[in-house]
Amino acid sequence: MRALMLHEKGRMSIEEVEAPGAPGPGEVRIAMHTVGICASDVHYWTDGKIGPFVVEAPMILGHEGAGTVLEVGEGVTGLAAGDRVVMEPGVPDPTSRAVKEGHYNVDPGVEFWATPPVHGCLAEEVLHPAAYTYKLPESMSFAEGALIEPFAVGMFAATKAEISPGDVAAVIGAGTIGIMTALAALAGGASRVFISDVLPEKLALLDGIDGITTVDATAQDLGEAVREATGGWGPQVVFEATGAAPVYRSLWALPAPGGRIVLVGMPVDPVPFDIATAQSRGISLETVFRYANVHQKAIDLAASDAVDLSPFVSETFAFDDSVQAFERFLEGRPTDVKIQITL
Amino acid sequence: MRALMLHEKGRMSIEEVEAPGAPGPGEVRIAMHTVGICASDVHYWTDGKIGPFVVEAPMILGHEGAGTVLEVGEGVTGLAAGDRVVMEPGVPDPTSRAVKEGHYNVDPGVEFWATPPVHGCLAEEVLHPAAYTYKLPESMSFAEGALIEPFAVGMFAATKAEISPGDVAAVIGAGTIGIMTALAALAGGASRVFISDVLPEKLALLDGIDGITTVDATAQDLGEAVREATGGWGPQVVFEATGAAPVYRSLWALPAPGGRIVLVGMPVDPVPFDIATAQSRGISLETVFRYANVHQKAIDLAASDAVDLSPFVSETFAFDDSVQAFERFLEGRPTDVKIQITL
Amino acid sequence: MRALMLHEKGRMSIEEVEAPGAPGPGEVRIAMHTVGICASDVHYWTDGKIGPFVVEAPMILGHEGAGTVLEVGEGVTGLAAGDRVVMEPGVPDPTSRAVKEGHYNVDPGVEFWATPPVHGCLAEEVLHPAAYTYKLPESMSFAEGALIEPFAVGMFAATKAEISPGDVAAVIGAGTIGIMTALAALAGGASRVFISDVLPEKLALLDGIDGITTVDATAQDLGEAVREATGGWGPQVVFEATGAAPVYRSLWALPAPGGRIVLVGMPVDPVPFDIATAQSRGISLETVFRYANVHQKAIDLAASDAVDLSPFVSETFAFDDSVQAFERFLEGRPTDVKIQITL
Amino acid sequence: MRALMLHEKGRMSIEEVEAPGAPGPGEVRIAMHTVGICASDVHYWTDGKIGPFVVEAPMILGHEGAGTVLEVGEGVTGLAAGDRVVMEPGVPDPTSRAVKEGHYNVDPGVEFWATPPVHGCLAEEVLHPAAYTYKLPESMSFAEGALIEPFAVGMFAATKAEISPGDVAAVIGAGTIGIMTALAALAGGASRVFISDVLPEKLALLDGIDGITTVDATAQDLGEAVREATGGWGPQVVFEATGAAPVYRSLWALPAPGGRIVLVGMPVDPVPFDIATAQSRGISLETVFRYANVHQKAIDLAASDAVDLSPFVSETFAFDDSVQAFERFLEGRPTDVKIQITL
Repeated sequence: MRALMLHEKGRMSIEEVEAPGAPGPGEVRIAMHTVGICASDVHYWTDGKIGPFVVEAPMILGHEGAGTVLEVGEGVTGLAAGDRVVMEPGVPDPTSRAVKEGHYNVDPGVEFWATPPVHGCLAEEVLHPAAYTYKLPESMSFAEGALIEPFAVGMFAATKAEISPGDVAAVIGAGTIGIMTALAALAGGASRVFISDVLPEKLALLDGIDGITTVDATAQDLGEAVREATGGWGPQVVFEATGAAPVYRSLWALPAPGGRIVLVGMPVDPVPFDIATAQSRGISLETVFRYANVHQKAIDLAASDAVDLSPFVSETFAFDDSVQAFERFLEGRPTDVKIQITL
Repeated sequence: MRALMLHEKGRMSIEEVEAPGAPGPGEVRIAMHTVGICASDVHYWTDGKIGPFVVEAPMILGHEGAGTVLEVGEGVTGLAAGDRVVMEPGVPDPTSRAVKEGHYNVDPGVEFWATPPVHGCLAEEVLHPAAYTYKLPESMSFAEGALIEPFAVGMFAATKAEISPGDVAAVIGAGTIGIMTALAALAGGASRVFISDVLPEKLALLDGIDGITTVDATAQDLGEAVREATGGWGPQVVFEATGAAPVYRSLWALPAPGGRIVLVGMPVDPVPFDIATAQSRGISLETVFRYANVHQKAIDLAASDAVDLSPFVSETFAFDDSVQAFERFLEGRPTDVKIQITL
Repeated sequence: MRALMLHEKGRMSIEEVEAPGAPGPGEVRIAMHTVGICASDVHYWTDGKIGPFVVEAPMILGHEGAGTVLEVGEGVTGLAAGDRVVMEPGVPDPTSRAVKEGHYNVDPGVEFWATPPVHGCLAEEVLHPAAYTYKLPESMSFAEGALIEPFAVGMFAATKAEISPGDVAAVIGAGTIGIMTALAALAGGASRVFISDVLPEKLALLDGIDGITTVDATAQDLGEAVREATGGWGPQVVFEATGAAPVYRSLWALPAPGGRIVLVGMPVDPVPFDIATAQSRGISLETVFRYANVHQKAIDLAASDAVDLSPFVSETFAFDDSVQAFERFLEGRPTDVKIQITL
Repeated sequence: MRALMLHEKGRMSIEEVEAPGAPGPGEVRIAMHTVGICASDVHYWTDGKIGPFVVEAPMILGHEGAGTVLEVGEGVTGLAAGDRVVMEPGVPDPTSRAVKEGHYNVDPGVEFWATPPVHGCLAEEVLHPAAYTYKLPESMSFAEGALIEPFAVGMFAATKAEISPGDVAAVIGAGTIGIMTALAALAGGASRVFISDVLPEKLALLDGIDGITTVDATAQDLGEAVREATGGWGPQVVFEATGAAPVYRSLWALPAPGGRIVLVGMPVDPVPFDIATAQSRGISLETVFRYANVHQKAIDLAASDAVDLSPFVSETFAFDDSVQAFERFLEGRPTDVKIQITL
């Protein structure tokens, strides 16, 4: 079969690799149909590493995937050949203590697609545990299916936010994850979502969604915008979705007293944390790392009228043009949300 | 001033009573404008009591009120004469242990409008603590303001439900509180709300609200309807809003495994609780008694595009016609949600 | 190998059965050492069924087990032959929606030892998934290890109670589960635990544990005892651990306002639920069904100085005397907590 | 009456001031008996300010107080002259939004004893709202009563930690607040509490308390100590109680995956926050600012066998020797926990 193989920093190509073979017990074999490109895929290509994760052997890229079941292994009951499916790309060790305590996403032993040394899903076929494979509703396209992975990050952020009815949310950053988080927060309990970005083109993508107010960060302070709209009180929930160092200077005073900050963006270096300000406002903080226990709900929500992911596919490339798709990602057009590849 | 005074079971009239006088420290004096009639007001009139609460002395009725501040007492800073306001009708004892532990609604010493022996607000003027008086946004009418009290019950139910993003909710009963709960649950996090009633006219009032699915209980089982729409799984959150004995026969198996039942309706007698069924499904239960800490958010939400309370005022009577308003309530037309009185 | 086989109601014997063979991928083969007898084992023997679970084919009894690993299957890394272990007896279907939403104990497809038609662990050898097999600390005996299963029920109850520092707890019933719950609640946050029973011999077993106050239910009302000790306020958390119908008459008024009831006991028939009382006190309720995500913490706690399970083994029988052990259980001596069998 | 008046940085004396007069409605007049000295009192004396709070007019110091009710104002029912009491020193504005949303401690308008410009309680008499005045149990001395305020900080920290049964806690710093937090965490749910400090004399004060393990930070890393005792897993809950800049370098990796950090110490300047590390471990964070809704439980707990505060009064001075008491505080002997003044 063919796969998009990253050999080392900067060197990547579609090539023939050994097919994964028959599914083992509890596994399914899947023909990939659509795979979204994530910034992490691009980073491995351009830098050969992300933090402690270094590409030391050839690795197939891609972790945002949807496809069709070809064959099911022994003991798999809920899935059958022909089922259209979405995969949760991280598979924890079921014997790990993190799993046993109910936090499978932070199992240090998790195997995650396209995180070295684990192969990803930009390949004609993959094997995957049935337990992390979800049926795609008929109403949902493969393209929407492949958006479930980033949407699940937004869902996990919105879930950890513990939004109460009537809460106002603020999202910093209208990148892919910021947008996904805004959609999940709005559908998941926020009465209003304010979202800021320095690129008006990004914000324009959210125009016309009732309940979302965009704030051009070059012209207005997000905190001021929310306080103005809330009688000076501010947002009960703040999602940080940029990881950009300057944001953290003012972040700690942004939520209303008793509010919550959800840290979705991942800054490369430590950022200054004004604990005294956060304390005097009684702020709690949650961190988001991938997701746990939200995929089915993310699919259900995306299949409902409450959320429409389809506008956020910016451009689709054929598998043969995968390298161009990555180059296109690097261009970073302001209106880009998600670039996808179909197989 | 004039007030609607209930003397005893069945005997009620508008009459001249002593005005409340100047506000004390921390109090405001309010000219009432609109007051909604609650089933409890009607019960006191027809039965002279509700459970342990017996009308033993003349009592002014009404607790769902909006009006205009006439005068503020010593130390009141956030309110001024002329402010349009909504009042939270229950005032706890600030020294009570319930207050000290953060549950002010269940303070046994709470003084609640029109709960014997405390006078209500169907009067030209009332005194009320500023701490339980909220400004009405300009965009909100007095009629909507007087709906905040029942909406706050729905808000408290939706808050206690701890809805997670993507959760599907079911509401049993489309009476006033059922409708308010459905609106709060939808705006407060449920991806879809199914609501059932035996009166199609009630359900018709919710037609056209995206995200709400009505279920005619005479034709279809609510549980079946939700399971059909959720691949057999069922609702993660169930709100019981009837208090009707037969409902509790099937209630305990209604939520999905790991789900939650919020008990809003108040049955007169104990109901059968199938604990084994609830246990084997891992159900948690919350009870709702009035509300705490939700009024401001209820106002904000009702002022936002997310919730529109205005369609739920069924008919409005002049203060002089208060007795007719109560008689109209008793008629119980299927399309009735809220009957209000203006002063 | 030999096993204690229940053929049908009333007919049970130790007999030769086929050994389970080699462990599959992710499994371990365990030589059982100690198995506690649970009331459910005895019920299957005396009645041939528990509710919907009917013994229709011969079934090995026992689900409270500790033993020694003999062999590990493919892919098992954290366990090795010779490890002393405790097993969580319920194994959910990893592809079930309950598992995917994080509630594995209420997966309808869970396979639980000695719940028909699944064989239990009163056998010389068993196979079990490594993911549900836990190492026993050196300091802990097999007898204590076999007590982890009932203790895990108490731990799950105490976990669901969400005890806040300073909360006072009340436990109704000093049967095995009541005692386990009291120990877990005390070690897990309650400042004081009051426990009532009609058998003074049961209560005497808890004498001398700092923080536990026993209440002879034949002489004093539990609610009164707690209110007396708390200035009239009552317990913030109540654990019902009898399932006895009369208890539910007064249960709903037992917790302090804003308190919580944890339903551990499983009454056979529906019980009367005084919703109005629970509502007016703002009570929340949790149900307990087996346990999830607590085994490791239960083991750690039982290995610590905070909890000592060893006094609660009442008598130990040799495997050959298993039937006598069951007969001894049926005797129901007032001082009995746990009868165990060693292999 | 006489009071300890701070005129400006460095200038403080006991002097005659006007007595507060009769209690207003809802207030009580209290004869102070014992007042603890807090670091904040000392800072105002030595520096004239703490952050934005500047002493611009003479201010009576002291906020950790216990005394005896002399007279109650109109409407006060639960207290009477002669009652021994403890006071919660912060009084929020009941009309504030923070109060209305249930977070009274972070009301920006809170009036807190000895926080400029509000007078404290190092005076012969004070007026205080009955709602923030608590009866002292007979078994508790005034000295223990005056320790309730710092203990309430520990209680609030332990409450926000949401400790689950079996959780292991780590406390960084055995200063007064660290000790109070360790006691509250142990009594409030932690199976074991590890506490570290650079001063062995501080740690020695906790010797002999079952469940507390002290770690000499000059000789051993706290994280290592806990991981060693937990099979490499680490503490589920970490309390930072120093506010010392170097601690934050390693703090974020200290909790076990899925764990929680409670920020009790208040560093003067922003500290480096390694968000990526906290995210990859799924850490949540809570901030502690004073306390809310915990005083009654703190009193109950300190009155129970579970917690003994009495060993933590290091030295007691007569009111006339107040300046010496402050000088003694400044000495900072390693064994000092709390210096108190009696009136």
